[in-house]
Amino acid sequence: MKYGIVIFPSKPVQDKANALRKRYDPHYSLIPPHITIKEAFEADDETIHKLIPDLRAIAKETSPLTINVNKVSTFAPVTNTIYMKVEASQEIVHLFEKLQSGKFPDNKEYAFVPHITIAQKLSDQEYADVYGSLQMKDTQLEDQIDRFQLMYQLENGSWTVYESFVFGKDE
Amino acid sequence: MKYGIVIFPSKPVQDKANALRKRYDPHYSLIPPHITIKEAFEADDETIHKLIPDLRAIAKETSPLTINVNKVSTFAPVTNTIYMKVEASQEIVHLFEKLQSGKFPDNKEYAFVPHITIAQKLSDQEYADVYGSLQMKDTQLEDQIDRFQLMYQLENGSWTVYESFVFGKDE
Repeated sequence: MKYGIVIFPSKPVQDKANALRKRYDPHYSLIPPHITIKEAFEADDETIHKLIPDLRAIAKETSPLTINVNKVSTFAPVTNTIYMKVEASQEIVHLFEKLQSGKFPDNKEYAFVPHITIAQKLSDQEYADVYGSLQMKDTQLEDQIDRFQLMYQLENGSWTVYESFVFGKDE
Repeated sequence: MKYGIVIFPSKPVQDKANALRKRYDPHYSLIPPHITIKEAFEADDETIHKLIPDLRAIAKETSPLTINVNKVSTFAPVTNTIYMKVEASQEIVHLFEKLQSGKFPDNKEYAFVPHITIAQKLSDQEYADVYGSLQMKDTQLEDQIDRFQLMYQLENGSWTVYESFVFGKDE
């Protein structure tokens, strides 16, 4: 099964991202707006069950953190993906690194650029238009993050949450 | 914000339901296949934060349970919704009842009929065709359930998981 780990920003930020995704992101209906902190990886049931205590431990030792978005950016020319750039705070980078080490597969393809995708798979013309117009707009967001979610992918390409991991939770 | 509580069946069951939902359920892209165990209710942040310890306690005292689907059924003539009928075991009924009592709003509109919706909002003709053809098929499923998910609704009508609650988890 294919798994991935994401952070969902708060509802107001998700609503803002969705207003754009609805028009510009073909993944709009497959997953809510999110920050990927571990790219999709294949794992069987047994492997996942072994990873879950580690995910709990990582969440427990992570404090709730603030994220800031200051601009819209792009992965062009690699792909014409447009995203809200999340400032790479030490906390979020540490979290990402923990999820690539120990028992976790080190499956990062690129350097970690925390972001919320708002447009992808656009034609070159669409890309230029959308990116141009979004750059003119003020994009400043602050949000509080206190959990991440382990998700798995269904056959239709959509993602379902398997488990949420709350930061610093002490039960 | 609008919240609801659902159980996601396992991936094979979700895939089976989605194969039908894709054609017959306009909510297909808003939420993965699920069993609703608490209908949507309005709550502010403070109320939800007070409910969460109760949800954890309820999950903790619930044991993993087996669900069985033996047939496809319908809510017609109330609505022309078609669903996989989940046998109403004592365990799942108890879980449902706990979520209507104590601090939880008692917002159930109908008697609890645990189910996985596969078609809704069909025209009468479509409904008759789809229900007729699904009744001819053998629908037998067994699945293991060990968690429920608290979700909230975004402005576009889609649902995001806020937190998962694993049964009997002892941390």
